[in-house]
Amino acid sequence: MIKVGVFGATGYTGFEVITRLRRHKNAKLVFATSENSAGKSLSAVYPVGWDVPLISGADAPLNAVDAVFCCLPHAASMPTVIRARESGVRVIDLSADFRLEDAAEYTRWYGVEHTAPHLLAEAVYGIPEINRAEVARADLLANPGCYPTSVILAMYPLLRANWVAADAPIIADSKSGVSGAGRKLSLKTHFVEVNENLSPYSIGRQHRHLAEMEQAVRRWGTVTAPVIFSPHLVPVSQGMLSTIYVSLNRDTTPAEAQSLFEQTYAAEKLVRVLPPGELATFAHTRRTDGAAISVTVVSPRQLILCSSIDNLGKGAAGQAMQNFNVMFGLDETEGLL
Amino acid sequence: MIKVGVFGATGYTGFEVITRLRRHKNAKLVFATSENSAGKSLSAVYPVGWDVPLISGADAPLNAVDAVFCCLPHAASMPTVIRARESGVRVIDLSADFRLEDAAEYTRWYGVEHTAPHLLAEAVYGIPEINRAEVARADLLANPGCYPTSVILAMYPLLRANWVAADAPIIADSKSGVSGAGRKLSLKTHFVEVNENLSPYSIGRQHRHLAEMEQAVRRWGTVTAPVIFSPHLVPVSQGMLSTIYVSLNRDTTPAEAQSLFEQTYAAEKLVRVLPPGELATFAHTRRTDGAAISVTVVSPRQLILCSSIDNLGKGAAGQAMQNFNVMFGLDETEGLL
Amino acid sequence: MIKVGVFGATGYTGFEVITRLRRHKNAKLVFATSENSAGKSLSAVYPVGWDVPLISGADAPLNAVDAVFCCLPHAASMPTVIRARESGVRVIDLSADFRLEDAAEYTRWYGVEHTAPHLLAEAVYGIPEINRAEVARADLLANPGCYPTSVILAMYPLLRANWVAADAPIIADSKSGVSGAGRKLSLKTHFVEVNENLSPYSIGRQHRHLAEMEQAVRRWGTVTAPVIFSPHLVPVSQGMLSTIYVSLNRDTTPAEAQSLFEQTYAAEKLVRVLPPGELATFAHTRRTDGAAISVTVVSPRQLILCSSIDNLGKGAAGQAMQNFNVMFGLDETEGLL
Amino acid sequence: MIKVGVFGATGYTGFEVITRLRRHKNAKLVFATSENSAGKSLSAVYPVGWDVPLISGADAPLNAVDAVFCCLPHAASMPTVIRARESGVRVIDLSADFRLEDAAEYTRWYGVEHTAPHLLAEAVYGIPEINRAEVARADLLANPGCYPTSVILAMYPLLRANWVAADAPIIADSKSGVSGAGRKLSLKTHFVEVNENLSPYSIGRQHRHLAEMEQAVRRWGTVTAPVIFSPHLVPVSQGMLSTIYVSLNRDTTPAEAQSLFEQTYAAEKLVRVLPPGELATFAHTRRTDGAAISVTVVSPRQLILCSSIDNLGKGAAGQAMQNFNVMFGLDETEGLL
Repeated sequence: MIKVGVFGATGYTGFEVITRLRRHKNAKLVFATSENSAGKSLSAVYPVGWDVPLISGADAPLNAVDAVFCCLPHAASMPTVIRARESGVRVIDLSADFRLEDAAEYTRWYGVEHTAPHLLAEAVYGIPEINRAEVARADLLANPGCYPTSVILAMYPLLRANWVAADAPIIADSKSGVSGAGRKLSLKTHFVEVNENLSPYSIGRQHRHLAEMEQAVRRWGTVTAPVIFSPHLVPVSQGMLSTIYVSLNRDTTPAEAQSLFEQTYAAEKLVRVLPPGELATFAHTRRTDGAAISVTVVSPRQLILCSSIDNLGKGAAGQAMQNFNVMFGLDETEGLL
Repeated sequence: MIKVGVFGATGYTGFEVITRLRRHKNAKLVFATSENSAGKSLSAVYPVGWDVPLISGADAPLNAVDAVFCCLPHAASMPTVIRARESGVRVIDLSADFRLEDAAEYTRWYGVEHTAPHLLAEAVYGIPEINRAEVARADLLANPGCYPTSVILAMYPLLRANWVAADAPIIADSKSGVSGAGRKLSLKTHFVEVNENLSPYSIGRQHRHLAEMEQAVRRWGTVTAPVIFSPHLVPVSQGMLSTIYVSLNRDTTPAEAQSLFEQTYAAEKLVRVLPPGELATFAHTRRTDGAAISVTVVSPRQLILCSSIDNLGKGAAGQAMQNFNVMFGLDETEGLL
Repeated sequence: MIKVGVFGATGYTGFEVITRLRRHKNAKLVFATSENSAGKSLSAVYPVGWDVPLISGADAPLNAVDAVFCCLPHAASMPTVIRARESGVRVIDLSADFRLEDAAEYTRWYGVEHTAPHLLAEAVYGIPEINRAEVARADLLANPGCYPTSVILAMYPLLRANWVAADAPIIADSKSGVSGAGRKLSLKTHFVEVNENLSPYSIGRQHRHLAEMEQAVRRWGTVTAPVIFSPHLVPVSQGMLSTIYVSLNRDTTPAEAQSLFEQTYAAEKLVRVLPPGELATFAHTRRTDGAAISVTVVSPRQLILCSSIDNLGKGAAGQAMQNFNVMFGLDETEGLL
Repeated sequence: MIKVGVFGATGYTGFEVITRLRRHKNAKLVFATSENSAGKSLSAVYPVGWDVPLISGADAPLNAVDAVFCCLPHAASMPTVIRARESGVRVIDLSADFRLEDAAEYTRWYGVEHTAPHLLAEAVYGIPEINRAEVARADLLANPGCYPTSVILAMYPLLRANWVAADAPIIADSKSGVSGAGRKLSLKTHFVEVNENLSPYSIGRQHRHLAEMEQAVRRWGTVTAPVIFSPHLVPVSQGMLSTIYVSLNRDTTPAEAQSLFEQTYAAEKLVRVLPPGELATFAHTRRTDGAAISVTVVSPRQLILCSSIDNLGKGAAGQAMQNFNVMFGLDETEGLL
């Protein structure tokens, strides 16, 4: 039984990690932290009623666990990750703090100094379907952002096969449920402001997740063209769909493109390539840890990919648990939804 | 042309008052205040794009207006109302500050001292369908709360006819859209907490609006039995339905009860008594300033009334504008939705 | 491994039964039927992508299973239940067809003749927390309706203790998510008609579930007073809350009433009595198979109970699976959410 | 006072036309038709309670009106339009039947023969901000589809200025509320299927509205590149946003692009070009008849336009009423929301 702790257990991703730990046969939750609710039970925060005692992060017994999930906000995660690594604990970090390999780039996008640049080299940005072997060896796993996961999973077959045009931008028009914005208070998440509304934000080349996407596109492909990324907030609690417009450097056919995707993910349990004619929707992955991708050929050199994940599932806690399973040599889907 | 000012223009009720003023033929908006957005335009707060300059309440030119709508939170409203009355300006106050005739009762429910008890005697709690003549004479109009409006309008025909049993409680099970909770930030109005949820709160005899309801039931009827009032928050932006269970002191029939309601409101433009068999829903009054009431006879001495208003319409800004129209001798529905 | 079949697998309750069977360690799905989608896979109907072959009910191999879940509409269920019982298969029927012990009463409420009155005596109306021993022996289990489950679970501690006033009506004001109305097409479930709306329907003594409630109240208590039941449709996919107003035949205190409820359900895993001051909401049981009940003492003889279940969980498929587990001597929560 | 009739008054667009006619100072509703509800009042269909008698289209007194709004489904509209034109009545047709100038193209997209090709030459596809003079002369006005309106209004400044690259596709990723799918029953509009979901459909070059868009792009610009159009259904009743990715044939700057849009629409009351940095959302135009457009320069030759309309407002009934006002020389915004 692998002993784990969760930092930041009362945010949406922390809660979802605990949801999966409760189902997990090989992991045991040793502690869960919350600065705001230390001393209370998780059932005081989430009405579903799980009696998990919450402690302050400062009191977390790092010597009693094999691994920790860090579900803290960016910047707040760094000191905890440093502490955990100094204790020899393996870390799955769900924040953005170890996703970018370049500390200067991190500072540029997140507006704070990186206080653990020495750990960046060690950190593995992990999507098991792409770099499973690296994940297995990781001691510090940087769990990808939700938007990047949806875009990179869909792009990966094309990148690997080197089909993507070098010069035309990759356009990702993404739609996300509101839990992606977290539980902290903001007019942007007030019910009356979100309900019956749909809002683009940070479109073009302004959103922080763009840096992750481009880093991945460069790492796992040969594309030099920019990514254009336009997120939209939709009045749904959980869910994410990226509609991706890709220009190719070669002609293809619907059958060939479909086949490329199906072959790439043939062995994967969590990624479904939908049959021709069926488009991915939120419902394909809602409250699951899987991904669903549809491939539409508009013209011989123009594709539209629709990539669906649950932003809290494959987009956060689900992928974190999947990475944990890979890191510890367990059944990759254990505990997953 | 009657000149008016609006205090608290960027809350939901303030915005809705301005919505109606824009349509009003006989009223002209002279100023609108907002402490948070003074110096900006209303279009910076509400994207619908109305270019209304916002000033601080301290700068409001009270000598340039005939009337003001106070859309401030309770307690914050009192000093502004005092100022306005001292300037001789007629006031329609949408807060709770002048609804209860007894200052001690106000303090008991709202937890603050009443700083203008001398104005309580002057204040008129006004629902035109019930006390139109009083409203017409009012210089300080206390606009009723949303829940009380929905309950009192439905109970009034029974109260006036003295049909209500003296001993059995009147049970009002009310459902409200989220805008009733206002625009200030709270986990209770966070999209993810409200969406796909439905929550009772302050049920029984705990909600502040209970005091208004019982005051009205005593004033406009002879009932001494308690009111039991259970509000519920529903994932809808605007709307309110009270399902009211009433015991009678006499036997009735569906036809007779229906007739009592239809006769009571026969001359009213804003209150619809629905035909037998049609139950009031949110949709009956959504984004309007009307009320819809259905009467269901369960047994000779047991009725269920369903009373629908828009919480921002007849439950707030619509009734405020209706009261304004009555106060100034205008067409009662001018500017209304 | 117990072999089971599911009739009506593509309705919402059928799908939820299959959801739980997929998690179940001791049950194996042998067949699933759908008249509209026979020959297809369940993944063609529900995008979550489970590859369950669908067959026509006429082709169901009853001799290959130990039990069947009947998730067919009322009236349509009877012939299938008859067939299954004639094959010696144990039945959990989620329709209303075997819930009322009196065939004439069934006909009065459902407008069709009962074609298997001989099976009514055998049928067990089962809520394990109340009549577990009976459920264990059942060969034909009539799974309760969602509304009755929410009301009866909340009333049971008071009924058992004989606290309920004989003469005052029990008033249940219930709110349900839209999946309770099923998947068949109707303007009442059209998104635009439901969204931003809230609608009472069949209030008072008109809804079919009233018959079940009164049958249970008479069976498990000594109450002779009528039940008044007012269902409301709310714009939520899954969830149910009954706000129940009960008059007592004795004085009580908050502590005593709380204690009665806690003691009654002390040994139950699926029913939570919430701590004093916490009111049950949809969120307490959303997407789970549990129930949550809060007890509010308004005055010494007047209580308000808030009873929350997921209409598809404890209100349908969850309770069906729980009953199945009891019938087959399994861990009662196996497979449950 | 101009006398008008409405064909198809109980669909969403028909109802919205009547909403605006009720506010209109210079128009009088003479008849309203509904095949399903003839003989009833509109208040039997829409609970808001307007007492408009409904008649069968066959009984419509065409000789008593100056103009008719046809709010019938495509194909069903043609015979009514023919009748109206033969009676000399001016027609605003909200269906797709007269939007495409080429009858063969109509047949290709809509799968039915065009039965009034002689009227196609007469028909004016009208967006007042673009071809006001043509609209003024029209006897048969083909009111544009909602998606095309959102896309064409945003593209028009670029088309007129000849800034659009000839070879790169124009990509319109559009999001629509559910009322755009109409009131007829379909699993696609079932609350439980739509709620908490988001679905792309007919993406690429498959949706019928593509034909309108390309016709307009060719007519009002010199672009020969294809349009790629991806509509998505979102769980909102009313609203539409098109996020449009455009490649330019010249370099531009944010200030220059902003200025082009502001100048193009400087004189227009219904089209707002948002200030730099503010992105168009559903909320900018919700329940209004206006449009809001934001311009984002991603790189010197790459723009993102966000174009917001209410699909029932500027996307249907609002633009229809605007066209009517232009046709009859009235104030262009009379009756509009």
